[in-house]
Amino acid sequence: MRPLSTLNKPIAVTYGEPAGIGPDLLVQLAQAPQGHALVVLGDPDVLQQRAAALQLPLSIKQYHPGDAAGGGDAAEVGQLCVLPIPLAESVTAGTLNRANAAHVLAMLQRACEGCLSQEFAAMVTAPVQKSIIIESGVSFQGHTEFLAEACRREDVVMLLACQEMRVALLTTHLPLSAVPAAVTPTRLRTTLNILHQDLRSRFGIAEPRIAVLGLNPHAGESGHLGEEETHVISPVLAELRSAGMSLLGPLPADTAFGRQSLAQCDAVLAMYHDQGLPTLKYAGFGRSVNVTLGLPIIRTSVDHGTALDLAGRGGADMGSLREAISLAAELAEVAAA
Amino acid sequence: MRPLSTLNKPIAVTYGEPAGIGPDLLVQLAQAPQGHALVVLGDPDVLQQRAAALQLPLSIKQYHPGDAAGGGDAAEVGQLCVLPIPLAESVTAGTLNRANAAHVLAMLQRACEGCLSQEFAAMVTAPVQKSIIIESGVSFQGHTEFLAEACRREDVVMLLACQEMRVALLTTHLPLSAVPAAVTPTRLRTTLNILHQDLRSRFGIAEPRIAVLGLNPHAGESGHLGEEETHVISPVLAELRSAGMSLLGPLPADTAFGRQSLAQCDAVLAMYHDQGLPTLKYAGFGRSVNVTLGLPIIRTSVDHGTALDLAGRGGADMGSLREAISLAAELAEVAAA
Repeated sequence: MRPLSTLNKPIAVTYGEPAGIGPDLLVQLAQAPQGHALVVLGDPDVLQQRAAALQLPLSIKQYHPGDAAGGGDAAEVGQLCVLPIPLAESVTAGTLNRANAAHVLAMLQRACEGCLSQEFAAMVTAPVQKSIIIESGVSFQGHTEFLAEACRREDVVMLLACQEMRVALLTTHLPLSAVPAAVTPTRLRTTLNILHQDLRSRFGIAEPRIAVLGLNPHAGESGHLGEEETHVISPVLAELRSAGMSLLGPLPADTAFGRQSLAQCDAVLAMYHDQGLPTLKYAGFGRSVNVTLGLPIIRTSVDHGTALDLAGRGGADMGSLREAISLAAELAEVAAA
Repeated sequence: MRPLSTLNKPIAVTYGEPAGIGPDLLVQLAQAPQGHALVVLGDPDVLQQRAAALQLPLSIKQYHPGDAAGGGDAAEVGQLCVLPIPLAESVTAGTLNRANAAHVLAMLQRACEGCLSQEFAAMVTAPVQKSIIIESGVSFQGHTEFLAEACRREDVVMLLACQEMRVALLTTHLPLSAVPAAVTPTRLRTTLNILHQDLRSRFGIAEPRIAVLGLNPHAGESGHLGEEETHVISPVLAELRSAGMSLLGPLPADTAFGRQSLAQCDAVLAMYHDQGLPTLKYAGFGRSVNVTLGLPIIRTSVDHGTALDLAGRGGADMGSLREAISLAAELAEVAAA
């Protein structure tokens, strides 16, 4: 357990989809001393019901902004400090209900506003169920895009981190056939600029070293296995190196994830989802964290889904949420320093 | 150290590119007791010169097929049993020479013939340098394709194995943009048949469970992120399940490489190179082995390249070669049982 952090503002945590394991994780989290002052955004009744289902004690302290007693000081064991965001309809664990989609978005919106106004030091998100939000008639691509819009930022970067490595993605949720065309000089330049900048400002790494993967196997093997390395990636890397960035690559993905290579860089930039995340998830062992770079606020997230079948049943793994909170606090401390 | 295996035939080991680390690895290997009777295919002078460069003792015993004394019984410490394949021109460690390309192919051919005639229990290959063979004017795609042709097999499957997992590939050395079109029902069916068959006959797994990855991130997320899962992969899996195979999937790659998922399967079938190999190499930690399935012979290989810059200098890591020999012996024991 890390000592209670020195942050003087609480970290906002959204419980996400009320029918998923988000509320379970928060109830479970409340059972041990919290290393950081947290404010949970969600409906207090959902948390109480989930605590009853899990047969765990829970008392709720209402959040009062700026009030020392209810302002997000670390709660006692068995207690959560909650900023109430009311449900539209009552929830059955494991059962999605599109009537509550607005509830989910309202907690994200409130957490984001609180970060922008510096009421909160950072926000941490438990999983949402994208499909039910879309079915409710709202256009919703995911947390990351929602927050980019709320913060009026066009370009953000998804980075996953665990003890062993950090992996950022050039492209995220695209069909594989759409990936090669999305590897453009502009996108690569923008992504590397954000990654470099945020490794410095958010992670406090003065001279970040970034390992950039090729798009093709063996990083194209000198053009024998694809030309994007020669035509797109290498020229952009050369340009950004001249501008002072420390960049390795384009590297073959299966070499770059060797332990020696990893030791030589602060982050890996993968060209697409399945090139980067399987190794990260394997290494992270249920303890990896998703961080959105390029935002004016600090946002981390668990790396897993809503696990509807586990909601209200006990046994949901808190590892990723714990790490997401812990990383949010570290980033907030760097920002405050 | 495993006890000396019960195989009554030697394992052939080709040292591959003479200017690379293959000869180094064999000289280094000779410095400790060998768990298996080995016959090294290559030029004895190259091995002696490399031993001198590495300042390691080496005596060479010439291989005489069928002769108890020179028939590939386990050599003494500091000794290698060698089947001479003469060089065309003398070798400088680290310097490629296309005049010796035929030498490299001759050792592969001889090892393969010896496996087909059951003179050898298996063959293990150290790395070759594809580019210099091609420059010599020979059409050469790689070990795997060379051996498939030598064995008159059209379809083979590349599988990489380490302690933690086995990963087979549906497609291997293709530009990423060519991958989606290569994910065809025929290729998937053929690959799964070979993989299933060889997990049974080669690895001795009576009822192999195979985890098949999707092509797209999140395995296409019900068609939102690509349609190959729905149109190609799922129908083939359904068909082969009816035929009795135990298949999971199509699974999201970053879920399938979770430790719990891996524990539920005997092999993962990845759709392409960089979806499967980074995690395997990370987990294998320099100890992974490449196995060619679908051949009438047993062939394993190191998972690394020729490392020209390390040749003759010492410090080449024997881990993968040791494991490749050890796995070849295990597979040969299953075949002999």
